[in-house]
Amino acid sequence: MTERAINRRFLLRARPQGAFDPAALEFVQEPAPTPAQGQALVRILYLSLDPSNRVWMGEGESYMPPVALGEVMRGVAIGEVVASNVGAYPVGALVLGLLGWQDYALIAPNDASAVMRLPRLPFVQTTSLLGALGITGLTAYFGITDVAKPRRGETMVVTAAAGAVGSIAGQIARMRGARVVGVAGSHEKCRWLVQELGFAAAVCRRDPDWRAQLKAACPDGVDVSFENVGGEIMETVFELLNPHARVALCGLIAEYAQDGKAPGPRNFSNLLMRRVHVQGFNVLDARRRFVGATLRLALWLALGRIKDRHTLIKGLSNAPAALKGLFEGDNIGKLIVQVAE
Amino acid sequence: MTERAINRRFLLRARPQGAFDPAALEFVQEPAPTPAQGQALVRILYLSLDPSNRVWMGEGESYMPPVALGEVMRGVAIGEVVASNVGAYPVGALVLGLLGWQDYALIAPNDASAVMRLPRLPFVQTTSLLGALGITGLTAYFGITDVAKPRRGETMVVTAAAGAVGSIAGQIARMRGARVVGVAGSHEKCRWLVQELGFAAAVCRRDPDWRAQLKAACPDGVDVSFENVGGEIMETVFELLNPHARVALCGLIAEYAQDGKAPGPRNFSNLLMRRVHVQGFNVLDARRRFVGATLRLALWLALGRIKDRHTLIKGLSNAPAALKGLFEGDNIGKLIVQVAE
Repeated sequence: MTERAINRRFLLRARPQGAFDPAALEFVQEPAPTPAQGQALVRILYLSLDPSNRVWMGEGESYMPPVALGEVMRGVAIGEVVASNVGAYPVGALVLGLLGWQDYALIAPNDASAVMRLPRLPFVQTTSLLGALGITGLTAYFGITDVAKPRRGETMVVTAAAGAVGSIAGQIARMRGARVVGVAGSHEKCRWLVQELGFAAAVCRRDPDWRAQLKAACPDGVDVSFENVGGEIMETVFELLNPHARVALCGLIAEYAQDGKAPGPRNFSNLLMRRVHVQGFNVLDARRRFVGATLRLALWLALGRIKDRHTLIKGLSNAPAALKGLFEGDNIGKLIVQVAE
Repeated sequence: MTERAINRRFLLRARPQGAFDPAALEFVQEPAPTPAQGQALVRILYLSLDPSNRVWMGEGESYMPPVALGEVMRGVAIGEVVASNVGAYPVGALVLGLLGWQDYALIAPNDASAVMRLPRLPFVQTTSLLGALGITGLTAYFGITDVAKPRRGETMVVTAAAGAVGSIAGQIARMRGARVVGVAGSHEKCRWLVQELGFAAAVCRRDPDWRAQLKAACPDGVDVSFENVGGEIMETVFELLNPHARVALCGLIAEYAQDGKAPGPRNFSNLLMRRVHVQGFNVLDARRRFVGATLRLALWLALGRIKDRHTLIKGLSNAPAALKGLFEGDNIGKLIVQVAE
């Protein structure tokens, strides 16, 4: 890189009220920074877009503090070290962490960007390191193996089933012998889930009779719910839960625009009457087991036992529109912005 | 008994809309029935009043079907066999089961009243067989030992803490070394919890600043919630939960008048963000372990390690008003109607 490189960055300028509004972000250009002693400069290649981005913009309850106004927007990304004054990150190293919505990021060992080096695996697409082998794949993995624990013959419903987490979670559950039923946002997504990923059924939540379809797709009720959405979709699943069902509470994308003030499910009392087990979880609690889980996921991916799909958006400048689309259900699989070639 | 004995009975005439209204019950008098072959006649001594009575009157979700209109009101009671054509229940035997709101009930082995014989223990008050040693005591016992599992040094909040379940649950948690904080409906109840039962603190939910008091009483947050109430009390506790907290969902008395259609907690997303574990439970799922648990509770009671308190209402005719009072927080400890001397 030259010293003259431009660093395009999205800064958070306002906290969205309600749905994510791209106007909350300002697109600025600055000279790329120069790494000091103990720092390295990373050129960002791929930026992960995730529902949690909206959570971090607001002041609602979260497992992380909100992004400060005026700061670069927080985001998980993969980059390559292009200049380095620290042995842990030599030039050419591939790294993953909270590098932000920008072209270049400074990193240092043990800083808040939580960077780790990634192996360059010849049989793995780099984008899979943000998808099936990244935070969303790990979320699916630990959500299934530690929390939902579907067993052979059980019916598991996955919501946002064609998303980055849901699609992997459903495939892992299927490997364990569960009958997996997905709820997704389009007929194209539903076809993909059933025809490509082996879901037993998938229901399009935009169909007027989707509730009846879901009920029909679960003739023995629902033993396990892998919940990514919340709102009326979660309420509908709560109506179908069997006694002693488990709910792995992974995400509440329908509620993130309400900054933790969304009304709870109107049938909350079902959890009592049906003696349901609900467990909220976050993949970061399992971080000490990431390496082993990633290797297992990589093996499954290489063997074709799970399939990974990406929606790749080209150009950092398109990130805000792509994030808006994420909340509108535009993507199939993992949504990634390609920041650099 | 003579053949002319009168059986006073409360029949369910209408499903209450909202709060329990005594007008939903009709008080009738009939001749006491005569036991057929294989049946016994029980004279009811003590009738247990419980929040679940309201649930059974409505058509909302429950673990039991609603009481049919025109049928005798369902209720747990203790009675004495006064006439018998069945060896399992000789005259003089003490029995407990779903005997209903009436003076006399017919019972038979394996019928729907789920009757069991009780021992006559010289060191146990008969009323304790509906309280600390009855369904509510067992609910507290299994709720603590199987679900809430408070550990030494943890802070556990109990709501409806001066009620039949809450008061026993808090005492068992305290025996396990937890720091127990109660939420109750009067200052008198709070004094009893702290001074007699050894709660670390108790907060009166009718104080305008009770939320601040509860927060102050839990300086290290809440590790375990033993939830009996729901509504805004549960929401307040949800604000104080620590990451990885457990919620034993035992009852939702504040919501029973809404027949399963109450709005859920507005901070439901806290369960996700704080990775909370919620488990709904019902004591009937542990019925095979009742005998051992009852013996353990009886030992604790005899040793004075737990204290049992009753609010005794005299006369079956006063049962509807007493049940109304239960929902208004009138009773301390177990609410029992003395039907016969």
